[in-house]
Amino acid sequence: MPTAVKVSVIGAGSAQFSLGLVRDLCLTESLSDSVVSFMDIDKQRLAMIHKLATRYADELGADLRFESTTDRQTSLQDADFVINTAAVKSHHHQRAAREVVAKHGYYYGLKNRVNFYQFRLMLDVARDIEAICPDAWLIQSGNPVFDGCTLMSRETDIKICGLCHGHYGLYSIAMAIGIEQENLQKITWQAPGFNHNIWLTHFYYEGEDMYPRLDEWIETEGEEYWRNHVATHTHDIQMSRGAVHQYRMYGLFPIGDTVRRGGWWYHTDIETKKYWFGEPWGGPDTELARPLFVENLDRRIAEMTRLANDSKASIVEAFGNQKTNEQQVPIIDALVNNNEGQFQVNVPNRGALEGIPDNVVVEVPAIVNKKGIQPIHVGSLPPRIMLEQILPEWLEMERNIEAFKSGDRSMLLWNVLEGHQTHSYDQAVAALEDWLSMEGHKELSDHFKYGDRVEMLFKAF
Amino acid sequence: MPTAVKVSVIGAGSAQFSLGLVRDLCLTESLSDSVVSFMDIDKQRLAMIHKLATRYADELGADLRFESTTDRQTSLQDADFVINTAAVKSHHHQRAAREVVAKHGYYYGLKNRVNFYQFRLMLDVARDIEAICPDAWLIQSGNPVFDGCTLMSRETDIKICGLCHGHYGLYSIAMAIGIEQENLQKITWQAPGFNHNIWLTHFYYEGEDMYPRLDEWIETEGEEYWRNHVATHTHDIQMSRGAVHQYRMYGLFPIGDTVRRGGWWYHTDIETKKYWFGEPWGGPDTELARPLFVENLDRRIAEMTRLANDSKASIVEAFGNQKTNEQQVPIIDALVNNNEGQFQVNVPNRGALEGIPDNVVVEVPAIVNKKGIQPIHVGSLPPRIMLEQILPEWLEMERNIEAFKSGDRSMLLWNVLEGHQTHSYDQAVAALEDWLSMEGHKELSDHFKYGDRVEMLFKAF
Repeated sequence: MPTAVKVSVIGAGSAQFSLGLVRDLCLTESLSDSVVSFMDIDKQRLAMIHKLATRYADELGADLRFESTTDRQTSLQDADFVINTAAVKSHHHQRAAREVVAKHGYYYGLKNRVNFYQFRLMLDVARDIEAICPDAWLIQSGNPVFDGCTLMSRETDIKICGLCHGHYGLYSIAMAIGIEQENLQKITWQAPGFNHNIWLTHFYYEGEDMYPRLDEWIETEGEEYWRNHVATHTHDIQMSRGAVHQYRMYGLFPIGDTVRRGGWWYHTDIETKKYWFGEPWGGPDTELARPLFVENLDRRIAEMTRLANDSKASIVEAFGNQKTNEQQVPIIDALVNNNEGQFQVNVPNRGALEGIPDNVVVEVPAIVNKKGIQPIHVGSLPPRIMLEQILPEWLEMERNIEAFKSGDRSMLLWNVLEGHQTHSYDQAVAALEDWLSMEGHKELSDHFKYGDRVEMLFKAF
Repeated sequence: MPTAVKVSVIGAGSAQFSLGLVRDLCLTESLSDSVVSFMDIDKQRLAMIHKLATRYADELGADLRFESTTDRQTSLQDADFVINTAAVKSHHHQRAAREVVAKHGYYYGLKNRVNFYQFRLMLDVARDIEAICPDAWLIQSGNPVFDGCTLMSRETDIKICGLCHGHYGLYSIAMAIGIEQENLQKITWQAPGFNHNIWLTHFYYEGEDMYPRLDEWIETEGEEYWRNHVATHTHDIQMSRGAVHQYRMYGLFPIGDTVRRGGWWYHTDIETKKYWFGEPWGGPDTELARPLFVENLDRRIAEMTRLANDSKASIVEAFGNQKTNEQQVPIIDALVNNNEGQFQVNVPNRGALEGIPDNVVVEVPAIVNKKGIQPIHVGSLPPRIMLEQILPEWLEMERNIEAFKSGDRSMLLWNVLEGHQTHSYDQAVAALEDWLSMEGHKELSDHFKYGDRVEMLFKAF
């Protein structure tokens, strides 16, 4: 007996994600007859995704209904699940922000994580859910998952689950050491921590610990790989020299986006980044990689627009009819229909990961079924990882939240000062002020004040 | 009825401190007939301090007996109080260490706080106490108080109280804002935190909050002071521009050695340090101040040696006969004779300072009497201080202890990498290896290993 649910997608204009979601819903019989409500502030994108989705479901013969609206509250009415994938600031703006601070000596931007616009959006969505559909699950599917989900879980009472793709990096490792694609699902593994800060504590295949095989790969193939490998996509860094170096530092392999977090010394300039993260782009966060990534996104949007306007085109032919690897729909199915599964989720700790306070959102494996999302108690991470990677990031998150809530500009200044590319007090003050006063940052700038301390702190000494 | 106790002074060759201790004991009738056991590995200094102390007590007509030994276990026999003021590495060595790393681009040394030799000495003393005089109080009177006392309190069961001078900085503030010396004892104040990381939460005089008066001083006299003040001693920085800047950042005034901790941006080079901490030396931690400080110490030792060998000289005439401001003897008197007092101590937290784990040593005010050393529950420090100053330092201390206990060289490397004067991975590796292989660091270097990860980590990329 299928169960129909209403899924509200906030930021549905992220067409690639939305179409993937639609595909998975179409292919999940047990969610037949469900309603998907697309919500975005961009009318054109909204119309485009609605068109494509309708035709897609038709072609697949699936019983799915679609709504679209630019009004969030409307979208949330009677929603059972809310998937927030919205990003407030465009890639264009992020690039402009990097350029503003480049002249102050910052390679690839200020590492500011007081993500004012995203925090505000995420909180607004969470509060709307609390008011309109308080029993709905929020499946947070946009950055920043760690800070944002922690903030929302403290400020509201709604049910929150944050998702990310990083953990899939484990399969890149598996394939690199010779496990075939068809056997990947036989692997058992765990990589807990925080979002973008997860460490492979367990890695078994056919009853055997795979770490020795990983060590062997590093010994016998590592150097050659780092010399010769050319990244196949901008995020292809799981087996990089930088990843293995972090493994050597910590004794556990960093997974997915954890690799690109690393220490500042991996990221000082393009040559250094190429050294650690490989040719041709030096990892995803460079002036070489990012435009390509954005270009690819734009190209896909253009293609989707073309298809949406070509009534004769087959959507299935263009996008396929196999389920994606995304966790959103399987999690919905598990919660609704008790089709149990194990997933990598971001939820409040409540003891799952030792040594972390309960009110901090951690990334852990969880059993999901009709009872709910139930984190597995993973125990503890090794002391060095806790002391150098996890606990410092916990504190950083607390500072981000405190800065956002207090509106204290001196906390932004302190962040810039702590950045490793800051070499003088003056540089930090000047860069911060330019960054705050740039186009698109007015609300941000208005939110953060020095109060009556402005003279002493602001004046570039 | 006076009570006689045995006080063992480890590192008694720190002649200035030892003589001050003797003076205070001589002038505390209620501790009459006590025994002071001087212990040091330096026989000459030991003989000198023994001579001076004996004559001092004679001149003052005090009933005090003296022993001296180069054997620590002997000194600890039947001790009621153990005052450890020993420093393993000389100022000469510390200077050489700074010079070794200077060529790698580090102004005024690597900020290494994994103080191997001091940790080891402090633990050895604590373990000896546990074995020989387990009911004795250890009054730790040498750096590093925060890390060292925390380590000792976790590894042994002895009673530990760390003392420091920094909190006296409060009186410099008081005098600067016009409170006369004879009225200083009427002030009530609190500045809790960690050793060298204390913040003035309360400051009252004659029933009035003195912060407005402090603000007024800053407004009306600050600029002129910073332009014209010439430091009267190397540690004269309490009213400096750097101190006030930290006050502006945090809303509470930093006290004593807290001022010189500050952010890296106060300490990049001599001009910057003079800007923040004043002429003529730029604070105590510079190539201008430190030789002077050491010179003064040497001069005093020379003077004491001269006096010790001049049987006709009057020690009282040379050193005076008023009590010092030190807390050691009044604390001993309070514990032994119930002459209650309030003191600034470093003891395990046990809830005194909110938001800090119980097994971390905090610096707080305490009531001391025959019942024991009883910390006052001071509540909490403001969020910004907790998140930017206190909690990060707590983590740093945990890393220092973990590094020491594990012997993991990569933790030393990580520390150097995190230092703000490190600009590349290669620089950190090279500086660390030079520092570890310098003369006087053999046991340190042997203690810390990369293990089988040496190739990947050690190789300068």
